[in-house]
Amino acid sequence: MGLSPIPDCIRVTVPGGFGKSIVANRGQYFAVVDLYGGQCGDFWSLDINDLDHFLSPMHTWIHTQTIQPKVGDELVTNRREPILTLIADDVGWHDMLAPACDRQRYERYYGVADHRNCCDNFREAMSERDWGNRLIPQPFNLFMNTFVEPDGKMIIRDPISKAGDKIIFRAEMDIVIVVSACPMDLNPVGGEGITDLEIVVANSPEAILNNLS
Amino acid sequence: MGLSPIPDCIRVTVPGGFGKSIVANRGQYFAVVDLYGGQCGDFWSLDINDLDHFLSPMHTWIHTQTIQPKVGDELVTNRREPILTLIADDVGWHDMLAPACDRQRYERYYGVADHRNCCDNFREAMSERDWGNRLIPQPFNLFMNTFVEPDGKMIIRDPISKAGDKIIFRAEMDIVIVVSACPMDLNPVGGEGITDLEIVVANSPEAILNNLS
Repeated sequence: MGLSPIPDCIRVTVPGGFGKSIVANRGQYFAVVDLYGGQCGDFWSLDINDLDHFLSPMHTWIHTQTIQPKVGDELVTNRREPILTLIADDVGWHDMLAPACDRQRYERYYGVADHRNCCDNFREAMSERDWGNRLIPQPFNLFMNTFVEPDGKMIIRDPISKAGDKIIFRAEMDIVIVVSACPMDLNPVGGEGITDLEIVVANSPEAILNNLS
Repeated sequence: MGLSPIPDCIRVTVPGGFGKSIVANRGQYFAVVDLYGGQCGDFWSLDINDLDHFLSPMHTWIHTQTIQPKVGDELVTNRREPILTLIADDVGWHDMLAPACDRQRYERYYGVADHRNCCDNFREAMSERDWGNRLIPQPFNLFMNTFVEPDGKMIIRDPISKAGDKIIFRAEMDIVIVVSACPMDLNPVGGEGITDLEIVVANSPEAILNNLS
């Protein structure tokens, strides 16, 4: 699938509770912005030429030796190939553990049917591509605040991101980016409400910052 | 796919560096035994009637609120359905984070080509089933000793399991069990050598213990 030329800067709003996708070419930069603060964004990056090849949290942990990526870290795929570099991060704490929420999450744990969820958001965002019936990869949950205690206990804490906080990556291959502004409003993940995120793709970090300022 | 009747107790040796599979019916119990101590076992359980449905560490963490399952915990699938209950555990500390090692792990990180690896062991163990080109699910790495520090740093420590240490589960659906006695001999995962594991399937925990003693 060919890539169309991308202008200097493209901005896509991800409405609260919904998902969007956008492409980035190798060498381009992109930011995910928490426009109003406290909004978890389930985030995926996939090789645009092979959708079975994607950013993999578990392979990244082994590569970076941390479950909390830091600025400068190289994030890798399920084939251990570099796909992203973390360039800047206003928050410095995210979640790479939790699976995307799905219909079963809301039905089984909260008794709520037909709730919007990040798995369906992923499928909607990928609806113009040949996703088929593939399983949903583990997401990187931006602006989500989980903590692992020394005994292994996993705690979901209130989000700490503030309005305008952003994380910036460089694409190390041609990718599809998917972001779901997580609709979870039944536990602390959702903070004080489900709000919009923004994806900004540009040719340099400066172009991103200029367009945000 | 029909299940053959299973006698009182079945034992399968998993040779060091290789993988084996065995079935267990809903309600049966099985142990994975570290025969010589210090041997990591990459471990999977899959719904025998639907290989896209399997034990999922990330969904289990949300369900049990820990990345270190404890005796009595219910482990769930990628559809958030109970698949295993943890019945007994001589070690009490394992790893649910690391992906299975693969050819790229040895080539990229250690410069070693054609090394045995847990992904190929999984495929070999599943060679008589219709696994096709599905991606390898995240394993539950028995007898592997990883630790997450408060800042997120992930450390691979020397194994602590001793000869004869075992973990026992109850199957909550009809499953295929796959165990790979991990061939990693290039970092602390391997302990003091790559050795055999054993899988024991029986109708009660007592039958397992009687057969082991």
